[in-house]
Amino acid sequence: MAHELRFQIKDKDIGARIGELEIDGKGIKTPAIMPVYNPNKPTIPIKDLKDKFGIRIVMTNSYILYKNSDLRNKVIENGIHRFLNFDGLIATDSGSYQLMRYGTVSVSNREIIEFQERIGSDIGSFLDIPTLPNAYKPRAIEQLELTLERAGGAENAKFVVNAGIQGSTFLDLRKKAAIEIGKRFRLCAIGGIVRLMEDYRFSDLVDIIVTVKKNLPTNRVVHAFGLGHPMSMGLVVALGCDIFDSAAYALYAQEFRYITEYGTKKLHDMEYLPCSCPVCNKYGVELKELPNEEKIRELARHNLYVTIEELNRIKEAIREGVLWELLSIRARSHPSLIEGINRVTRHNKFLSKLDPITKNSGFFVSGRESTQRTEVINTRVRAKRVTSKKLIMLRPFGNIPVEVLDIYPFNSFMCPELADKRKGISDIDIFRAILDYQFGSGASEIIDRISVKKSRNTGRMRWIYQGRELIASIRASDHFIIPKLPLAEKLKEKFPLPRLRVIIDKDAVPFVREGKSVFAKFVVDVDKDLRAGDEVLIVDQNDNLIRTGTLLLSPEEVKDFDYGVAVRVR
Amino acid sequence: MAHELRFQIKDKDIGARIGELEIDGKGIKTPAIMPVYNPNKPTIPIKDLKDKFGIRIVMTNSYILYKNSDLRNKVIENGIHRFLNFDGLIATDSGSYQLMRYGTVSVSNREIIEFQERIGSDIGSFLDIPTLPNAYKPRAIEQLELTLERAGGAENAKFVVNAGIQGSTFLDLRKKAAIEIGKRFRLCAIGGIVRLMEDYRFSDLVDIIVTVKKNLPTNRVVHAFGLGHPMSMGLVVALGCDIFDSAAYALYAQEFRYITEYGTKKLHDMEYLPCSCPVCNKYGVELKELPNEEKIRELARHNLYVTIEELNRIKEAIREGVLWELLSIRARSHPSLIEGINRVTRHNKFLSKLDPITKNSGFFVSGRESTQRTEVINTRVRAKRVTSKKLIMLRPFGNIPVEVLDIYPFNSFMCPELADKRKGISDIDIFRAILDYQFGSGASEIIDRISVKKSRNTGRMRWIYQGRELIASIRASDHFIIPKLPLAEKLKEKFPLPRLRVIIDKDAVPFVREGKSVFAKFVVDVDKDLRAGDEVLIVDQNDNLIRTGTLLLSPEEVKDFDYGVAVRVR
Repeated sequence: MAHELRFQIKDKDIGARIGELEIDGKGIKTPAIMPVYNPNKPTIPIKDLKDKFGIRIVMTNSYILYKNSDLRNKVIENGIHRFLNFDGLIATDSGSYQLMRYGTVSVSNREIIEFQERIGSDIGSFLDIPTLPNAYKPRAIEQLELTLERAGGAENAKFVVNAGIQGSTFLDLRKKAAIEIGKRFRLCAIGGIVRLMEDYRFSDLVDIIVTVKKNLPTNRVVHAFGLGHPMSMGLVVALGCDIFDSAAYALYAQEFRYITEYGTKKLHDMEYLPCSCPVCNKYGVELKELPNEEKIRELARHNLYVTIEELNRIKEAIREGVLWELLSIRARSHPSLIEGINRVTRHNKFLSKLDPITKNSGFFVSGRESTQRTEVINTRVRAKRVTSKKLIMLRPFGNIPVEVLDIYPFNSFMCPELADKRKGISDIDIFRAILDYQFGSGASEIIDRISVKKSRNTGRMRWIYQGRELIASIRASDHFIIPKLPLAEKLKEKFPLPRLRVIIDKDAVPFVREGKSVFAKFVVDVDKDLRAGDEVLIVDQNDNLIRTGTLLLSPEEVKDFDYGVAVRVR
Repeated sequence: MAHELRFQIKDKDIGARIGELEIDGKGIKTPAIMPVYNPNKPTIPIKDLKDKFGIRIVMTNSYILYKNSDLRNKVIENGIHRFLNFDGLIATDSGSYQLMRYGTVSVSNREIIEFQERIGSDIGSFLDIPTLPNAYKPRAIEQLELTLERAGGAENAKFVVNAGIQGSTFLDLRKKAAIEIGKRFRLCAIGGIVRLMEDYRFSDLVDIIVTVKKNLPTNRVVHAFGLGHPMSMGLVVALGCDIFDSAAYALYAQEFRYITEYGTKKLHDMEYLPCSCPVCNKYGVELKELPNEEKIRELARHNLYVTIEELNRIKEAIREGVLWELLSIRARSHPSLIEGINRVTRHNKFLSKLDPITKNSGFFVSGRESTQRTEVINTRVRAKRVTSKKLIMLRPFGNIPVEVLDIYPFNSFMCPELADKRKGISDIDIFRAILDYQFGSGASEIIDRISVKKSRNTGRMRWIYQGRELIASIRASDHFIIPKLPLAEKLKEKFPLPRLRVIIDKDAVPFVREGKSVFAKFVVDVDKDLRAGDEVLIVDQNDNLIRTGTLLLSPEEVKDFDYGVAVRVR
């Protein structure tokens, strides 16, 4: 019996997602870090990983356990969970690392799969072949073929397969691998990329990850093999990676390397430790004076603390819609990271489809990269929908109708000079323009004889009436229009199926009518031009309007996902 | 008896300095944070400040102690150190804050000075009048006059005077105040600026601090009143401020505001805490669920941890010579900080005189501000000294002789394309050009028939011989020339007094001849065109060459400082 995997998205920014991953009832939040645990010489005891670091998923190497017959028998007898004394999720690697490192392993694909099944790995691997960057292409092709063949041997494995996507730096091979692996497995692991990170080849890394992501269904959990350094983690999460394993916290410690969120330092070159973690707080720079073994142990702890800290910073940035701003900050850590973030903007057409159309945050121009942000792409398309009385040049967005300056992201640039340019523009002009912007050209034609009621506190437009009927409200935070049913009905009349719509299965209709959320698996179809964050019309399969709501996922995600909420119903 | 103050510089970057401040034998490292401690309701007990946060200097309000007759008698009886149970440095404020807040205080300047003397404050204040930003100018003038008059009453105080420099946002008044206060006091406090920080008016803050710094002797310890927020601390340190008091850690906690190094957040809006401090590590986001009183206490601890962490990050950046890079990172936290850093570059002529000519780091272009860095100013002047066979355009530096591309900061931009442009340029051409660059036009004329020995490991120029005599070596890290005595003698002949020279008092000659460092107070004169980091000729007052060495301070600092090393002798 294969282990069941459930994955749903709880929050989004750029291509990043905060997800909930559940495997056989054991849940973790993603993006997640999976510390690599070496049972032969654990740098941090498993009990501490659990209790002090809050770790709920670890990775260990099944090949190391398999090779040693004492260990092998012990772990077969007890099972991996009892053997490690860890009740969270345990992922096992297959010996691919050794294969890459030493060129050969003394186990077959079938043997290592069966072994992982016997010891009860929650997540296991087949013996994929990590091809290094810039390999000889025929060899990369050959290794990929073998990897895909071995993948076949794991299709019925009794664990969730951590399915390796290889192909070196050849994007055509990565594409092929992603398509093949993505068809068959729900947890996909981008392999052979650690060297790129170590060599600061972030642009190549971006191209590889985007190529893979473009060719995987959006509901696949993506594991970026070995990319657990906090410096580049934001970048990799922004492209849509969900899980990272990291041996770096321990390996770097062995070389007395001190990890920070902006790079790695040699501990012995430092005088002041820029960290408040329990280790740095306890020892300060006296950490350098500890006996070597203890120093390595303590430094590994620091390295893991700072990694988890960055992961929390990234998650909070996703929630707040300021992941681009965090990437801009991190990019200033190294010239190659600036190149990396600039490379991300080359893929902004792909990423803009995943990016929410409105965010709970300001838009802050941090440098050249900001001018190519996903929001710029999305808002340019929307701005063209509006028939405006007056356009103004608003960098980095281009020519923007003055009528929509109050909405996200233009509102970050509001100032008295801009407000001045709106003289002669009425509230009704503004409401009409925002209608067009949100719902499409011509949306403004559906309203007539409307009146506006303003907020007493802010003096800003708040409620819109047609006659005595309330047809819409304006959200204070981003000035987006929240249509009430009468307006929604008119929008539905104006725009033909499937525009603006989320079409739901008949089984879901009664629940949604009551105001329950629309779950992704009950969505039959969805307008491709919508964006997460849009206000949508929820209709049944006969195009009867059921409710309105806020789309939480991108249209492609709505289609791909089986779990989680697609529309929060109003 | 006035308390004795000693201050010396240990490390430098831009206008920032790592210093050692000693008052009556109690030493602290600067830049330092001085937590404000309210004895009536301490948010963090003094014992914890000492033991858990490593705090060696606190600030408390003498007016609060004075007002309450019970407290007053108790603190007079015990002395402030016993009263607070703190054996580090105690600075007392005078009631100026209350004066600003409530417009009046029930104590005279003389009374509060005497009170601070009686209770044994290490550092005390007169009753200066903080004028808020953008005050009515005649009022600002009037308040400044009164402040300067009151300063007079503290000239013979039995404590180190924390002498307030006021003047609101009027730079002419700030200049006048700095000149007057700087003449009379060694610890100068820039006041009335907290509001600017709170309102994100970083550009105005930069102008005020630079105006004050320009008009103070460089050896004055500068206290930036209330600027203890980590977000702007790097900026303020870069301009040359040494001490910060902070009540923010506690005040913000009372409003459930969570400080980060990139801004302040509302704790209750957060889901993930981007910090590894003992508080965040213990509670995680459950911190929100604590009872209010405990929550405030714990949040204040987090706020102080993160403040100290940023201070350590800043100090480490100064040591590594990457403070500009840290400022560029911090600037991406808020548009106003980008404006602030751009404003710093307006003052780069002043700051470039303080900035070292070479650093143990790369030079990283982070954005527009990097093109105006102090190093750019300094290297442009130096590059003009070189008669080159070939200039190349190297952004952001301008036209740079190809011969000097190996030295800091150009070496960060080295690449095969640039190396190609040096075809036909000999090692001897390179050595000559670097001579001119470091020591002045024409320096290359003093050498003849030299030969070059290369490093076996790197293949790069390492030792320079004239005949069989070793006349110089080339430092691997930055490719600067380290002259031996024969070359130094020739440089001395070539360039007349005082060029390239540090002239020392005869009392110091025997020690320096033995290789002891040159202390600042024994320097009689120094070439104004030198920069910290330059290789210099150490001569006696008859211009006899004693030794060579590395200048550690800027020429102005060498003249102003009475303590610390000015030249590390080779």
